[in-house]
Amino acid sequence: MSEIRQDITTEEWVIMAKERAVRPHDFKSKRDRIPVPVFLSSCPFCPGNEERTPGETLSYLNATTGKWQVRSFVNRYPALTPGGSRERRKEGNLFISMDGVGSHEVIVEGPGHNRILAMMDEGEVGAVLHAYRERYRALIKQSFVQLVLIFKNHGQSAGTSLEHPHSQIIATPLVPRHVRMRCDVAIRYHDHTCRCLYSDIIANERSQATRMVMETDKFVVFHPFASRSPFETWIMPKIYEASFANVTDGELEDLSHALRITLLKLYKGLNNPDYNFVISSVPKSDENNGYHLWHMRIIPRLAEVAGFEIGSGIHINTALPEETASFIRGVKVE
Amino acid sequence: MSEIRQDITTEEWVIMAKERAVRPHDFKSKRDRIPVPVFLSSCPFCPGNEERTPGETLSYLNATTGKWQVRSFVNRYPALTPGGSRERRKEGNLFISMDGVGSHEVIVEGPGHNRILAMMDEGEVGAVLHAYRERYRALIKQSFVQLVLIFKNHGQSAGTSLEHPHSQIIATPLVPRHVRMRCDVAIRYHDHTCRCLYSDIIANERSQATRMVMETDKFVVFHPFASRSPFETWIMPKIYEASFANVTDGELEDLSHALRITLLKLYKGLNNPDYNFVISSVPKSDENNGYHLWHMRIIPRLAEVAGFEIGSGIHINTALPEETASFIRGVKVE
Repeated sequence: MSEIRQDITTEEWVIMAKERAVRPHDFKSKRDRIPVPVFLSSCPFCPGNEERTPGETLSYLNATTGKWQVRSFVNRYPALTPGGSRERRKEGNLFISMDGVGSHEVIVEGPGHNRILAMMDEGEVGAVLHAYRERYRALIKQSFVQLVLIFKNHGQSAGTSLEHPHSQIIATPLVPRHVRMRCDVAIRYHDHTCRCLYSDIIANERSQATRMVMETDKFVVFHPFASRSPFETWIMPKIYEASFANVTDGELEDLSHALRITLLKLYKGLNNPDYNFVISSVPKSDENNGYHLWHMRIIPRLAEVAGFEIGSGIHINTALPEETASFIRGVKVE
Repeated sequence: MSEIRQDITTEEWVIMAKERAVRPHDFKSKRDRIPVPVFLSSCPFCPGNEERTPGETLSYLNATTGKWQVRSFVNRYPALTPGGSRERRKEGNLFISMDGVGSHEVIVEGPGHNRILAMMDEGEVGAVLHAYRERYRALIKQSFVQLVLIFKNHGQSAGTSLEHPHSQIIATPLVPRHVRMRCDVAIRYHDHTCRCLYSDIIANERSQATRMVMETDKFVVFHPFASRSPFETWIMPKIYEASFANVTDGELEDLSHALRITLLKLYKGLNNPDYNFVISSVPKSDENNGYHLWHMRIIPRLAEVAGFEIGSGIHINTALPEETASFIRGVKVE
């Protein structure tokens, strides 16, 4: 018999389908990856092609090479752009719309076309994380912005079209319902307990230990109790902070280590799987509230969302997080 | 500048990304489809292999051939199964789970291994719809069931592993948060207006006309104002009814026509795209309420959900429903 688990952060349910269970190593990608070159002259993100990506917003120099290490710029096909009005319009007497106000940037993670995040050293990963924080802080300050979302799409099934390693950052002029719902759950928990739901999740995961992947000085890495998909991984800071804007230099240094090891374990254990990650932070209006902990969610793309998930919002997961976490703990990386 | 539209049924937002806009015919699948045989001896759903799918729950005879036309049976790898307890369990003092109580059946849509729904005649489509209703009615009556979801996954990217045309039906022992949220929105609308939100959507779409695909005696077919993905299609009955359990014979006959034409237009216009569809109905407890209209949602799988969608719940759609609907209206099918 399967088990149904509740994701306490959203109050959504996940079916852990034991009858369909797949052993962790069976999720290993069978694809032969085509090795990509370190430089591709046709790639708009490769060094020398900077004029193809105007609207630069950040550039970090590599002290050794004297060239850029991380760059960010306005997305050439932005989903949202500054300007316009946040006034709602009506079509007929029912439908509501507004201008696509906001920002949409690309962060190129390094000059190497084939140097993916999992292969970088900690200094390189750290430079990417510093760029995330700098652009997050700049965008959240804009008057029309209510939420800033940093995310990465790795691999074709994760929705990327350009293989040069990059992340994206979108600033939205509204708080999406999906985020509002997650906040509501955490606020209610805070009202009932005077504690942060996410900090309590960390305490539970540490005491259970079965779903833990690793722990560093400042972060815990685990596969959550109600993982929606196999090998879903959360990275959470031990020190309470609602907004990613306020992450410290010391935390970023420690996170460089935790993120690199986590991605490297997934790379080795699952043969470079496609994945998405997102940095979950609070809406601007809630930066000083005590209910939310910023964190990272990594979602390997190992299963297709199908009709049942679309219709019910319930995900069917064919691997228990206790088993995937045990498998990942056993992957040697150094 | 893009436009942000609100899905009035969920209060979630969708970005209509005009900068990324793709012309409707560019969504046409470029894949060469491997023609599949009409019969495959290794297929568990093909005639003659019935012993491989025990637990039959329904079988309709074809009067002409004297053999079965539609069959349903318990899924061999069920996500949920009858029995067990609906009591919630706690892990530690935070996490909640329960037994995977429910039902999970497969409905084989016809004996032909390669005869997909879009290629069937109206009688064959009608037999499938009658099977949907019969199994829906049987499952919703079970004491432990709160919601019944009928869905179809067509093609690999839509999450299917078996190519023989089939649908699935899952009965859940709880009302998922996702469905509850949709109900809440419609109840609030009903409280404010004393009208059904979905019926008002139909009235608006009919008066705007730009997103309509077709209209039959008893159904309207349109691309919704805030389509989350290109060519998303809703089929809604004109006569108010909250639950799919109460659809009439006359409506099923009319729906056979509307669904067949809709799928055939997608098949011809987009070269047999992968798609999911779901039948949206109310939880059992709300069958007699006036706020919800049962309907079908068809979601062609033409774009990958990526990090932004996962993190924000906001979908980015690269095609306007006004343009996709116009394109589909122009696809000749008879």
